[in-house]
Amino acid sequence: MSWAGFKKSLLQKTGQIERTVDREFTEEEAKYRTFEKECQALQKDSKAYWDAMRAMTSAQSRLAETLEIFYGAADRASEGAMAGHAYKRSVDDLDAGFGRELDVPYRTAISEPLGKMCAYFPVVNEHISKRNKKLLDYDSARSKMRKLVDKPSEDPTKLPRAQQEHDEAKEVFDILNDQLIAELPQLLDLRVPYFDPSFEAMIRMQAKFAEEGYEKLSGVQRYFADNVRDDYAAGQLDAQVEGVLQEMKELSICGGN
Amino acid sequence: MSWAGFKKSLLQKTGQIERTVDREFTEEEAKYRTFEKECQALQKDSKAYWDAMRAMTSAQSRLAETLEIFYGAADRASEGAMAGHAYKRSVDDLDAGFGRELDVPYRTAISEPLGKMCAYFPVVNEHISKRNKKLLDYDSARSKMRKLVDKPSEDPTKLPRAQQEHDEAKEVFDILNDQLIAELPQLLDLRVPYFDPSFEAMIRMQAKFAEEGYEKLSGVQRYFADNVRDDYAAGQLDAQVEGVLQEMKELSICGGN
Repeated sequence: MSWAGFKKSLLQKTGQIERTVDREFTEEEAKYRTFEKECQALQKDSKAYWDAMRAMTSAQSRLAETLEIFYGAADRASEGAMAGHAYKRSVDDLDAGFGRELDVPYRTAISEPLGKMCAYFPVVNEHISKRNKKLLDYDSARSKMRKLVDKPSEDPTKLPRAQQEHDEAKEVFDILNDQLIAELPQLLDLRVPYFDPSFEAMIRMQAKFAEEGYEKLSGVQRYFADNVRDDYAAGQLDAQVEGVLQEMKELSICGGN
Repeated sequence: MSWAGFKKSLLQKTGQIERTVDREFTEEEAKYRTFEKECQALQKDSKAYWDAMRAMTSAQSRLAETLEIFYGAADRASEGAMAGHAYKRSVDDLDAGFGRELDVPYRTAISEPLGKMCAYFPVVNEHISKRNKKLLDYDSARSKMRKLVDKPSEDPTKLPRAQQEHDEAKEVFDILNDQLIAELPQLLDLRVPYFDPSFEAMIRMQAKFAEEGYEKLSGVQRYFADNVRDDYAAGQLDAQVEGVLQEMKELSICGGN
């Protein structure tokens, strides 16, 4: 803010210049600010969601790679090795499917529309700033004119000049203010039809991601015996693990005696 | 490494002390190092997978919250508002289910077993370091003894003392070396029965996460018209979005004329 602007705004605050209060604008601006915040949150969170999906598939790929080596080195014909191999295949499929079925739709249906909407905010905010600046000019011109009315100057040309300045400032402000009051609600009305497809695409994409994951991974589960399924579902570790742990403890290189 | 150790190792490198080569140990150690690296990779990647699942559900929660406000502010009875509300409910269910069905099983079946296995590595590595140190002692004692054999000392007690030191160093080394050669393969044999349940739990958990996500989110899809489904699946944006974008562009506050 320039010094002149700062001084005007200070004068207003201290009550020396009457401030034009415009409830209608204030209300519309508040709704717009909410929308602005929502869009920015959607942009940030849809990016975070996307990054998490990517991180998940890449962690899965690395896990599958390690497990394949792990089981492959033990006994290639074992059930574990076969499951490890099937897991690797599913995860590779998921990874390829991700690029094919989620990457482009995410960009075209979610990321780009959100980006385009968010790109309008600086333009609208510029209009709001300009309107606020013109409001200060208008308030200042009006105050100047009133002072000349209250305490006429010896120079008779001063009042008509002040009057003209006031009228001009008012006109400039009114144009900007009316534009915003008329168009902010129009912009907000457009948000639902605009985002409906993105929102729908997002839900579908999340469901698709989950569906593919389930299809592929449930195939891998065929390699496991059914009877242990419930133990894991209940969060119970197989006694096998405790037994193995006991055997490990007994090795002298693992600290046993 | 101490100065004495460093000097000994330097003498070995420059060929002044004959180095005991133990192929058997070298082979077992290499297999063990691979296993150590695999376990550490599994620990790191299963943590990354877990964090990605968490990040995904929390991004989903934030998206659902914003969308509910977004549509709620527009028209609570609209299809979008209803879908937004259903989405919020599903995501909350998923989040609660995550804590209930994945948190504890992940810890007990994956994170803790991996942690316990990884905690053995420093113990085993300590044994390997000790064995390597004792190998240096042994090589050095043998070299000392041989020198006295090649060039007898005037002091007749020196050779028997060197001989005794050599025998003791050999015995200490052999015990540690034999232990490792016998037990490293035992430890490695235990890795498959030990990790089988964790691996199985991991696949089941990933499948479960995907299954729940699909179940909940496919429910939300009921709120969308069927005819547009294919457009999104093909990554095509509805013409609606372009139309709305055009309307936005025409607003003067968005830079239109």
